[in-house]
Amino acid sequence: MADDRFERQLRFILEVDQLKQVLRRNYLINGERRENSAEHSWHIVLAATILAEYSDEPVDLRHVLKMLAVHDIVEIDAGDTFAYDVAGNADKDTREQTAADRIFGLLPDDQRDELRALWDEFEALVSPEARFARAVDMLMPMLHNRYSGGRGWQENGVTSGQVLKRQIQIGAASGTLWEKAQAVVAEAVALGYLSK
Amino acid sequence: MADDRFERQLRFILEVDQLKQVLRRNYLINGERRENSAEHSWHIVLAATILAEYSDEPVDLRHVLKMLAVHDIVEIDAGDTFAYDVAGNADKDTREQTAADRIFGLLPDDQRDELRALWDEFEALVSPEARFARAVDMLMPMLHNRYSGGRGWQENGVTSGQVLKRQIQIGAASGTLWEKAQAVVAEAVALGYLSK
Repeated sequence: MADDRFERQLRFILEVDQLKQVLRRNYLINGERRENSAEHSWHIVLAATILAEYSDEPVDLRHVLKMLAVHDIVEIDAGDTFAYDVAGNADKDTREQTAADRIFGLLPDDQRDELRALWDEFEALVSPEARFARAVDMLMPMLHNRYSGGRGWQENGVTSGQVLKRQIQIGAASGTLWEKAQAVVAEAVALGYLSK
Repeated sequence: MADDRFERQLRFILEVDQLKQVLRRNYLINGERRENSAEHSWHIVLAATILAEYSDEPVDLRHVLKMLAVHDIVEIDAGDTFAYDVAGNADKDTREQTAADRIFGLLPDDQRDELRALWDEFEALVSPEARFARAVDMLMPMLHNRYSGGRGWQENGVTSGQVLKRQIQIGAASGTLWEKAQAVVAEAVALGYLSK
């Protein structure tokens, strides 16, 4: 029984290696290649640690970090759905729920339930932790685009209006980060990286 | 002043993007390419969350996760030093200390000190958190090698004796994980993935 528990944990840990092959739309800051969802997940775990002081509500950082480590795992089956892809977002929820059933289902039941709850919480934005985690998750690709010449935006015909409409969610977690995000967008427009 | 603080945090967050380009010796489990240190860092944050129950001493998981998110950052300047590279390990410490000064030094002083202390703690193995973090950091590349046909071991002429001599550190954090590690090594030898 104890062995079976470890086997299930091992199976999950090996399975999620595939997140390293899910490519996002944005590029690394040096522009060399597109970013994958695993390294993105690491980057936001670190960014959340650094930026936690800007959350308007107190957050349990351990909870935030676990949520961020888990938040993209469903993409292994469901793929990364581009934020501005209307058709892709229409069935995103169904695809991701199926993925969550399968992938978290590899774990022992208690851990399956715990990680699934973390992911549900992140998706539903029902806690200060989830809102702050989402804010950092939104901030990073914007910074990547801004500091890699806007390539990810340009290749996908994204406008500043679309970015702001999405980034406004940052304001639900942090007035300061939302202010910074708006400044980054204005800067990107002024530099010609992002169309108006 | 507040703006300067954010600017320094931003500078650090952008700088560490380069960890995504530091390649390790081991391959992804599907063997397609070598793993980078950023995605490895994500993987061990998640693995530590799943395996924390096996730590022989109680650990503060928040502290473990922060340590793991930070533990490889010095590789941006110092490179990934292969575990079994004797010459590389001789000056590893000096190279990494210089790297830590520069990279953590980008942050506001309080966060510079906090992250530097986390990294020092990890390196010195002076706490249950550091020992457990190290155990997971050691376990993962072994699992990658075992489940990708031993390619990373073979390409670098690594023997089971070398692996065990290194992995014994896992035992300082967890009797269970050390037992599992020995079983994985025996299995890899039996399968011909790792030479005796």
